[in-house]
Amino acid sequence: MALTPSQLQDLAEAKAFRAETRRPTVPALEAMLFEPVPVLDHGFVRVIDYMGDDAAVVQAARVSYGRGTRAANEDRGLIRYLMRHRHSTPFEMCEIKYHVKLPIFIARQWIRHRTANVNEYSARYSILDREFYLPAPEQLAAQSASNRQGRGTVLQGAEAEHVLRLLRQDAMTTYDHYAEMLNEDEAGQPADPARQGLARELARMNLTLNTYTQWYWKTDLHNLLHFLSLRADAHAQYEIRAYAEAMMRSLEAWVPAVAEAFRDYRLGAVTLSAQMLAVVRRLLAGEAVEQGGSGLSKREWRELMEQLGRPA
Amino acid sequence: MALTPSQLQDLAEAKAFRAETRRPTVPALEAMLFEPVPVLDHGFVRVIDYMGDDAAVVQAARVSYGRGTRAANEDRGLIRYLMRHRHSTPFEMCEIKYHVKLPIFIARQWIRHRTANVNEYSARYSILDREFYLPAPEQLAAQSASNRQGRGTVLQGAEAEHVLRLLRQDAMTTYDHYAEMLNEDEAGQPADPARQGLARELARMNLTLNTYTQWYWKTDLHNLLHFLSLRADAHAQYEIRAYAEAMMRSLEAWVPAVAEAFRDYRLGAVTLSAQMLAVVRRLLAGEAVEQGGSGLSKREWRELMEQLGRPA
Amino acid sequence: MALTPSQLQDLAEAKAFRAETRRPTVPALEAMLFEPVPVLDHGFVRVIDYMGDDAAVVQAARVSYGRGTRAANEDRGLIRYLMRHRHSTPFEMCEIKYHVKLPIFIARQWIRHRTANVNEYSARYSILDREFYLPAPEQLAAQSASNRQGRGTVLQGAEAEHVLRLLRQDAMTTYDHYAEMLNEDEAGQPADPARQGLARELARMNLTLNTYTQWYWKTDLHNLLHFLSLRADAHAQYEIRAYAEAMMRSLEAWVPAVAEAFRDYRLGAVTLSAQMLAVVRRLLAGEAVEQGGSGLSKREWRELMEQLGRPA
Amino acid sequence: MALTPSQLQDLAEAKAFRAETRRPTVPALEAMLFEPVPVLDHGFVRVIDYMGDDAAVVQAARVSYGRGTRAANEDRGLIRYLMRHRHSTPFEMCEIKYHVKLPIFIARQWIRHRTANVNEYSARYSILDREFYLPAPEQLAAQSASNRQGRGTVLQGAEAEHVLRLLRQDAMTTYDHYAEMLNEDEAGQPADPARQGLARELARMNLTLNTYTQWYWKTDLHNLLHFLSLRADAHAQYEIRAYAEAMMRSLEAWVPAVAEAFRDYRLGAVTLSAQMLAVVRRLLAGEAVEQGGSGLSKREWRELMEQLGRPA
Repeated sequence: MALTPSQLQDLAEAKAFRAETRRPTVPALEAMLFEPVPVLDHGFVRVIDYMGDDAAVVQAARVSYGRGTRAANEDRGLIRYLMRHRHSTPFEMCEIKYHVKLPIFIARQWIRHRTANVNEYSARYSILDREFYLPAPEQLAAQSASNRQGRGTVLQGAEAEHVLRLLRQDAMTTYDHYAEMLNEDEAGQPADPARQGLARELARMNLTLNTYTQWYWKTDLHNLLHFLSLRADAHAQYEIRAYAEAMMRSLEAWVPAVAEAFRDYRLGAVTLSAQMLAVVRRLLAGEAVEQGGSGLSKREWRELMEQLGRPA
Repeated sequence: MALTPSQLQDLAEAKAFRAETRRPTVPALEAMLFEPVPVLDHGFVRVIDYMGDDAAVVQAARVSYGRGTRAANEDRGLIRYLMRHRHSTPFEMCEIKYHVKLPIFIARQWIRHRTANVNEYSARYSILDREFYLPAPEQLAAQSASNRQGRGTVLQGAEAEHVLRLLRQDAMTTYDHYAEMLNEDEAGQPADPARQGLARELARMNLTLNTYTQWYWKTDLHNLLHFLSLRADAHAQYEIRAYAEAMMRSLEAWVPAVAEAFRDYRLGAVTLSAQMLAVVRRLLAGEAVEQGGSGLSKREWRELMEQLGRPA
Repeated sequence: MALTPSQLQDLAEAKAFRAETRRPTVPALEAMLFEPVPVLDHGFVRVIDYMGDDAAVVQAARVSYGRGTRAANEDRGLIRYLMRHRHSTPFEMCEIKYHVKLPIFIARQWIRHRTANVNEYSARYSILDREFYLPAPEQLAAQSASNRQGRGTVLQGAEAEHVLRLLRQDAMTTYDHYAEMLNEDEAGQPADPARQGLARELARMNLTLNTYTQWYWKTDLHNLLHFLSLRADAHAQYEIRAYAEAMMRSLEAWVPAVAEAFRDYRLGAVTLSAQMLAVVRRLLAGEAVEQGGSGLSKREWRELMEQLGRPA
Repeated sequence: MALTPSQLQDLAEAKAFRAETRRPTVPALEAMLFEPVPVLDHGFVRVIDYMGDDAAVVQAARVSYGRGTRAANEDRGLIRYLMRHRHSTPFEMCEIKYHVKLPIFIARQWIRHRTANVNEYSARYSILDREFYLPAPEQLAAQSASNRQGRGTVLQGAEAEHVLRLLRQDAMTTYDHYAEMLNEDEAGQPADPARQGLARELARMNLTLNTYTQWYWKTDLHNLLHFLSLRADAHAQYEIRAYAEAMMRSLEAWVPAVAEAFRDYRLGAVTLSAQMLAVVRRLLAGEAVEQGGSGLSKREWRELMEQLGRPA
């Protein structure tokens, strides 16, 4: 992720700015503001703005009049209670805004979270940079044999080299042809005066899905947690999980009590179906339960045994 | 709107608080923060927190890297362009949070705006205060003869007095019975030890719809403008319009360029149907157009003539 | 719930109507269409229209071209998989529309579910009927001593009678005054020609919160399940649970495979936090775990023991 | 758009299916059900299911009890009134579900409409077909000189040929490499047993943005109209407009009265700002207004003169 001199100056100015405010302010998050956290080979995520803190969640839950004067440990207890019982509205009272640079095929997964506000860089209006995602060698995985939407072992040797070469070469070729079709030089003038240049809104179709785009993405804390619970999960595709993990760090700086409760009651939690709970009760009563008589399918049985840390 | 000593102290503390921030900060809105603006007889609206400013709208539209370095008049032009062409996403990048105290029948209109985040004081969990809305004499209007959902002339004399007496007396009686059924003294103990007291979630059903409730209401700027375009409009019920007008003042302090564009392109704008536009073109061409040959219904004709400032 | 002769005729006509369609059609739900299911003393819920069926969920999950040709038991397995892993979008492909008559204080809880489409009877435009909710004797419960938003034992004897009398009398008095202030006879003419009558949008504020209102409420299946998981739950207020339970019956007629999976994986399921799961693993390993060394708060410990069916 | 034999059979079965229903049914839309309407070179849009009709809008607006017995011309008048005054909730009472096949770069524009329900074919789970969009010669336009996000004249001769050749060749090459990296034969077995094959979730990143994807897209009528007002507009990119126009035809078959009102009050309508309205009033009063003294910017002046059909 290389910034242009003009971007570096903008960034320095934004970081140097100081104002006085009466709003709830979180020094640990202020220290991170504007700073891009690198993700993948050319991407980043950075916090642009935020509203609220742990206390704002508590205050909304109490619809109290002031800033809240209870002891911090009471606040922590209330936040844990709200998280455990899946109360959502108090968490909606905090808001955060990110600037994200990410490959288009990841943007397509991400945008499925419909409750956020999004402003994406427009390739209809502007020209995209020559940047595309190429997986690191340890991420170049084979198709999983057991999971139709997962990865298996890492490709090795000639196959790995061949795949990387194809990805790099195709991204470079299609980008070069994109630029050629646009026919614009750096000043926006025709590179070749003999040609008109294809409209930007058409030329972009020649780019591959690993081309980087960027957007502003703003969401409330409740929906951020929902996003993170799906995307920081082990079943998420690695490339989006890398972003979610970078965002987890801003969550911890911003609302530490919420982040702790989120880890305990959401990320690390398991949900047992009625039948699974019945099996656990029977096991606790000392009964020897087998899959056959458990009321669970083989797949459910395997999932349960894994959660309980027992051999299936 | 009388605050308790404890609320006044909370308010004073919130207002005295100062922190340093690198976030976009709007001094004119900071000066208003936390301060309740009285609305109706016991209600208020006050800004609790906010995110973003005029420049944040511009920055999102440009997905630029820094805080935006263009001249202010270019920013104003872009904001006007975005408003004129109904671009919505850049306005979603700003957020504001209000604390509102309002009569329940107005809360029921307000909540129809589904995109906001809301935390309401819970009458299932807590006890509502003995406060209810009574219209000022100049608001005690008769049913409109021409508009099934509007007001006509103001009631006078004996009828006005009678109506006000009924409203006040019924609100007081039902509240007193609510308290009696609850059977709780100020310490939360049974007022009459011989009775158990009705559950709060049931007792509340005895209150009238002019009882005051309160909530935290948080929305992005785009949806705030949508709310204001409907509720600061002359066709809105007076009681909700009073809140919308108080919120217009916070809008002007917060995002003056957006507020100006909103007045020009939304509040003061008119939409002409295809047929109405055809009539305007014919009139401009010097043709004498009558309702009969206009392609407009009588109602549409009347609406158009009103907008054009011509006698119908 | 008494219908007027005109409503009964409309109902009979709607039920007699038959058309041929190529859309997915569910005979068991067709048999229920339009028929009001009584809820509480004057309320009802009835299905007005629907789109999709169990197969539509499967079809969306597969984005298949036709109606889906797998065997029914494969469909059931896929639906259970989707429910277990909290996939939401395939369930959004079905839609249902209800007509509901309900007390206003319940409508205020219900409307918090913001994703539905709602058209409510307008008391700004029309006049509400003289119908209000009075709890049945077995629902007239005291405040719970342990749960600030719950009910305790049922009120008995003189207190119960007194409470019911207050509720009935206040609802009747406030309604009578509402009608008096409106000053309209059945033909919409002034009842008392000497008075103008108060505007409907104002007079309504005199009604108590147990007055019945009605609305059309339309939602997709995913959000219906979310509504039911909260409102058919034992912690929900009885009055809204009564509606949720009536709606559960339409769910079972409409999408039986989804309803079954919903009961197993949502209604009957429990979520264990990371710490709770650790306790279960230790118990299964034969360890004697006490609350003190469990990492759980007393409240969490009590909740867990209850779920596991063990003495706390 | 070539269907496989299995798809053709599914389609034939879906079209042959008939059931009896008591739901509102629209014969003109039934006749279109399931039938793909070709759009662009390989895309289509087809209606899969629907709920409601013109009368359902009216019924919701009246929250009437039955199917509605007013004369059709009264219904039309009410629908026009609702559309003119931007009432949205009655239109939300109808729902429609489409199956759409479209190029990915168009899917990325389309998905910005966040209120719809979407199930997209998953390239993480499955393998995409070898189909990509190539513009017809008359759509191969140059960048507009005046509008940064628009098209200018159509490319001719050698440049047109060159552009088309690049687009075709890059799409074919990247698809071939995608297939090569996947290394799966038609039975899902390794094409080359010496290689493992790259995970599907990674290989897809090599595809170009004109590759076709498909999804189920379900929305209520209000949000469909919003989509159409933006995407059937002359400023929309041609490729998405082609879909919107195909959907307009299903709108007209489904809800003819709504479609007519939509054309008059939305598609063919113009919105005049406060300043524009002032200019129109002055012009109607016979005043000679110039841009200089109009209070309008040059750009606004040009837009207004265009709408009024006058030379700028």
